[in-house]
Amino acid sequence: MKRIGMLTSGGDCQALNATMRGVAKGLYNTFEDVEVYGFLEGYKGLIYGNYVKMKPSDFSGILTKGGTILGSSRQPFKLIDEPTPEGLNKVEEMKKNYNKLKLDALVVLGGNGSQKTANRLSQEGLNVIGLPKTIDNDIWGTDMTFGFQSAVDVATQAIDCIHTTACSHNRVFIVEVMGHKVGWITLHAGIASGADIILIPEIPYDIAKVCEALDRRTKQGKGFSILAVAEGAISKEVAALPKKERKAAVAAAAAKYPSVAYEVADKIKEYSGMDIRVTVPGHTQRGGSPDSYDRVISSLFGAEAVELIKNKDFGKLVVMRNNEVTAIPMEESAGKLKYVSPDDSVVKYAKRLGISFGDE
Amino acid sequence: MKRIGMLTSGGDCQALNATMRGVAKGLYNTFEDVEVYGFLEGYKGLIYGNYVKMKPSDFSGILTKGGTILGSSRQPFKLIDEPTPEGLNKVEEMKKNYNKLKLDALVVLGGNGSQKTANRLSQEGLNVIGLPKTIDNDIWGTDMTFGFQSAVDVATQAIDCIHTTACSHNRVFIVEVMGHKVGWITLHAGIASGADIILIPEIPYDIAKVCEALDRRTKQGKGFSILAVAEGAISKEVAALPKKERKAAVAAAAAKYPSVAYEVADKIKEYSGMDIRVTVPGHTQRGGSPDSYDRVISSLFGAEAVELIKNKDFGKLVVMRNNEVTAIPMEESAGKLKYVSPDDSVVKYAKRLGISFGDE
Amino acid sequence: MKRIGMLTSGGDCQALNATMRGVAKGLYNTFEDVEVYGFLEGYKGLIYGNYVKMKPSDFSGILTKGGTILGSSRQPFKLIDEPTPEGLNKVEEMKKNYNKLKLDALVVLGGNGSQKTANRLSQEGLNVIGLPKTIDNDIWGTDMTFGFQSAVDVATQAIDCIHTTACSHNRVFIVEVMGHKVGWITLHAGIASGADIILIPEIPYDIAKVCEALDRRTKQGKGFSILAVAEGAISKEVAALPKKERKAAVAAAAAKYPSVAYEVADKIKEYSGMDIRVTVPGHTQRGGSPDSYDRVISSLFGAEAVELIKNKDFGKLVVMRNNEVTAIPMEESAGKLKYVSPDDSVVKYAKRLGISFGDE
Amino acid sequence: MKRIGMLTSGGDCQALNATMRGVAKGLYNTFEDVEVYGFLEGYKGLIYGNYVKMKPSDFSGILTKGGTILGSSRQPFKLIDEPTPEGLNKVEEMKKNYNKLKLDALVVLGGNGSQKTANRLSQEGLNVIGLPKTIDNDIWGTDMTFGFQSAVDVATQAIDCIHTTACSHNRVFIVEVMGHKVGWITLHAGIASGADIILIPEIPYDIAKVCEALDRRTKQGKGFSILAVAEGAISKEVAALPKKERKAAVAAAAAKYPSVAYEVADKIKEYSGMDIRVTVPGHTQRGGSPDSYDRVISSLFGAEAVELIKNKDFGKLVVMRNNEVTAIPMEESAGKLKYVSPDDSVVKYAKRLGISFGDE
Repeated sequence: MKRIGMLTSGGDCQALNATMRGVAKGLYNTFEDVEVYGFLEGYKGLIYGNYVKMKPSDFSGILTKGGTILGSSRQPFKLIDEPTPEGLNKVEEMKKNYNKLKLDALVVLGGNGSQKTANRLSQEGLNVIGLPKTIDNDIWGTDMTFGFQSAVDVATQAIDCIHTTACSHNRVFIVEVMGHKVGWITLHAGIASGADIILIPEIPYDIAKVCEALDRRTKQGKGFSILAVAEGAISKEVAALPKKERKAAVAAAAAKYPSVAYEVADKIKEYSGMDIRVTVPGHTQRGGSPDSYDRVISSLFGAEAVELIKNKDFGKLVVMRNNEVTAIPMEESAGKLKYVSPDDSVVKYAKRLGISFGDE
Repeated sequence: MKRIGMLTSGGDCQALNATMRGVAKGLYNTFEDVEVYGFLEGYKGLIYGNYVKMKPSDFSGILTKGGTILGSSRQPFKLIDEPTPEGLNKVEEMKKNYNKLKLDALVVLGGNGSQKTANRLSQEGLNVIGLPKTIDNDIWGTDMTFGFQSAVDVATQAIDCIHTTACSHNRVFIVEVMGHKVGWITLHAGIASGADIILIPEIPYDIAKVCEALDRRTKQGKGFSILAVAEGAISKEVAALPKKERKAAVAAAAAKYPSVAYEVADKIKEYSGMDIRVTVPGHTQRGGSPDSYDRVISSLFGAEAVELIKNKDFGKLVVMRNNEVTAIPMEESAGKLKYVSPDDSVVKYAKRLGISFGDE
Repeated sequence: MKRIGMLTSGGDCQALNATMRGVAKGLYNTFEDVEVYGFLEGYKGLIYGNYVKMKPSDFSGILTKGGTILGSSRQPFKLIDEPTPEGLNKVEEMKKNYNKLKLDALVVLGGNGSQKTANRLSQEGLNVIGLPKTIDNDIWGTDMTFGFQSAVDVATQAIDCIHTTACSHNRVFIVEVMGHKVGWITLHAGIASGADIILIPEIPYDIAKVCEALDRRTKQGKGFSILAVAEGAISKEVAALPKKERKAAVAAAAAKYPSVAYEVADKIKEYSGMDIRVTVPGHTQRGGSPDSYDRVISSLFGAEAVELIKNKDFGKLVVMRNNEVTAIPMEESAGKLKYVSPDDSVVKYAKRLGISFGDE
Repeated sequence: MKRIGMLTSGGDCQALNATMRGVAKGLYNTFEDVEVYGFLEGYKGLIYGNYVKMKPSDFSGILTKGGTILGSSRQPFKLIDEPTPEGLNKVEEMKKNYNKLKLDALVVLGGNGSQKTANRLSQEGLNVIGLPKTIDNDIWGTDMTFGFQSAVDVATQAIDCIHTTACSHNRVFIVEVMGHKVGWITLHAGIASGADIILIPEIPYDIAKVCEALDRRTKQGKGFSILAVAEGAISKEVAALPKKERKAAVAAAAAKYPSVAYEVADKIKEYSGMDIRVTVPGHTQRGGSPDSYDRVISSLFGAEAVELIKNKDFGKLVVMRNNEVTAIPMEESAGKLKYVSPDDSVVKYAKRLGISFGDE
């Protein structure tokens, strides 16, 4: 008899259910006798002992369903060593509930913060398996996270829609793309949608260079331009500031503008006089059905989690490396972010195609 | 020999090219000898004599293409009797260019403002045919405009995406939907996506009623809610003001908030303390490929325009009435808006389903 | 206290669940106290007393879900007066189960055959409401059935895909479109996808005319052509036969060819030597998520069913007429099919655009 | 001044235009002075000197467009050393036309056969760059070809549609998936769509095992099943035959059945009595717009082709390896097929999830 716990933590994304289905199908197919417990609303459910015993039918028909049937909540790592409002020690409560249910393993679907917490629980002696969830694709140690490609699809479709209007009206449009502190979604959606300019956090922009790139298009007789701007895009001046001043500058901009795209639009207008339209697809990028790519990798990730459980190979994060699904020790990844490198070949190729990153 | 001019005026939408293709296919198939002239960037092209002689192949492959291959510009009606910056009389220039090309007819794809101008040109003696273009579906005299259903699709998909996140995180989300001064897109996309609350300009909202509706859902054990809010939504208090004060209040809100959804979110928070997320799909709603519904009606509209040209039956606006494509005199429609009636059966049915309009 | 039964009968389609959700939402919102009983697998469930008592949560999240959560089966009308294999009288059993559950009304989601059965039950004294379900749009008395527009979408997308290949390789392609004995889906998907030739049952084709139309395209320098052919398409020769011979001829073709498209391809090849490719999207046309159009009308249909129940206005079929949802007596519709008329304006407009129906 | 030729050869697929746009954008952005020549209908255009001089605007707006703007034709390798109908030596004609245009390089977008021809031209001294085009993903030496992921999307959506019907009616459905002699599309679309059984050429099936797998589902109370069957699927008995007999057996089946899925359906019915429905999405799988994944990799592939041209590094095939775009000598790949290995980790993971391959 195996008893496996599962939880989804942090911002939701498109293939959470597909991944849980993968884990569950693998478990039911591998072990004669297995019970699956779903903790509700992420680590909260583990801390407070809120869970449901899942039936195989709970996982039927969820392969294509966005969101998470278990609910989610922001991961509690930053505050993990502060007591809960009720004065409970979070780690101890999680261990207690894990042990109370006599779990053989806990499977955690989560992003960076959530995996850091998972690693902590592993260090505390729980049998933990991590599954790399995030639209941002910023988990260190894996080439790909589930959710990323579906988010790229949504962002690309949004830019496609904007493209026809920009072109018909000879306008310059900024589409703001999600991605937290990294530029992966923007980079991919920008290339996929034929954006002319791509601004990402890892390559701070010089507004003069951005305006030059816009100008070049006008001189080539192209009446419209599309900028794909990451929600974390940052200017060279601000990026060059010492940490404290930089944080203050970012906070000041956040207070002034609804979001980064409006700031960039304002700067372009100030520098060049051009009128800029802004579209912010926002949370649509993390919702809806997973695409076929994400459904495949999340199914494989789920199956690998079951392999690890079968082999009692715990404390591992399931990853995709060089096109193969495998697993790495959790502590290798925990606490690190995977950034786009300005020297990354995708950036190099994008520049070869004439896409400006506003840096040169 | 027939010589037909064509132009697309006002904000772009999804089936402009499909409609022009319909007109062109119909013309080439009906008349032995026909020349089609496309004026560039809407009425501007007609005023300044900027046009291209179109070939049949120009209309190949554009059935599914968003935007307009002729370009568009805001219609100039408000200022039609003011001279151009160069001091030209706009109406006279348009007549001159129409006559210089010896046109047999001018086909105008446009929304309310553009059709008003078209009507004026008709009154000036030009042979004009209007085609009802707008995502807003607010043209008086037709049950349906092309672009509307495709915009409903995009808005519905956006709300679908938000739905999975709202549900996974137990959040309240507002999705702001386009539609200018009317609520058609919001009404349809709201029903199509299962929104819990729909706010449209024609039914001013009472924030207390909106919060009551949200409260009812909480009491039913539903942790999340979706509001579909029209970009023109207005509160009862503001709607009740005399025109001048109302305009001032709307302007003040527009200065304070990026858009209406943020205002509503603020009011809900103020009234009830609830945290509200906002998503504004914006211009994505008018871009991208037309759906199959729009491709059919735009093709039929184009064919009807050719029937009218064949019968020399000018000064007509092509419309859909009671599920049949037909035509009405332009002056019947010009200058009037088609609003959602609060007594409309669609509103009545939506209320029957438990959807709140924030009015009762 | 109200007790309402519901069943879905006949081939499944895209907005069955959306419609049931509409009925349920309307019921729960209208009556203080209401119980909903779902009969499983269509009339079978009513005959054999297989049902589930539904909870409000059963209708959550099904707005976008294809198929039917109740299951379906072919409607039993043809044999309704023959006993079941167990020797039971079907009508009596259905009445017995209706009465045993003390139902106030039975809501039947079904196509032509299923509505005929519903009418019979109404004549037997049960309180029945019909909802017009079918991708074929062939229910007499309603301008629109739910499922139709979503099926048009799928068929249109299939032809769109074929279009790029046909065009790249200069090939002639037939795409076979569903629709049973009528041509509605083919007519609409054919126009929406820019098909060059449309063959439907209501306009028998002359293969010589079809080949002439193909020839005209070649002469115009167009290297490829697309035929949208209804699964019920029929040639002039066969259509002209007396009923018995006609049935025999159709049966002979059915035995020889996998489906009608292959027969048409063969005839074209025989007549003109042209090589024809065939694609048959088949059942994909009735599956998947309903589009936004179908989700709206099915929600309205569901709400109207509740209006009728509230008003104890039974024996009615909910319909769409002249763009308004309303209801008609079931017996008006029962047993009649709504065909495309060769004089229908849509056909006339399609011909104006140069589309050949193979008849002239 | 650079003069670059380009051609698309073999069956069309979704990102041909996107790839050509990548090459062109890269060329125009890299070289001061460059002329691009497009040969029409694949190698035919090179043999007969049919080409167009391309303008930068020819590549505008084609990123999302399926098919190929240059047209394509089956590659002529098998017969490359036989003369043309006019008695011309194909290789010599291609060299002559290459030299007449003073080309600096020839870029060939094509699959296995076409790359074999490209390699031959390289060996004959032409400067050739290959780009790996095929929905089948069977080009040896690259992890990924452009077109593949988009084809997986279409096949997955088709199975999704079938899923709702299968589930509503408790039916067993076979969906036949493209892929020529290999099982890549079927494997990925099968996993992505939650197919219960996947049959691919590389893992010959035992009909008894297939029926056992169906039986297991019935015993688990699951009323429906989905089989994803590759167009090249083969039974153990036939696969075990010596080559000549095997070919004869395949040919006999091809004569008897419209396609492989019908043969499998027949065998299942014969073995177990079960009724099976068949859907064959066919050519829809290679048409339509490329998805965002394919648009990214095809853009990168195009950029890499330009790098190679810039570095005069010819005789290379652009490939994706370990998630990086790079290039390999053409002769390494030419003439080899990349098969799914029965020991491939994807197959292993799929089996872990309970998917049957009909082999054990």
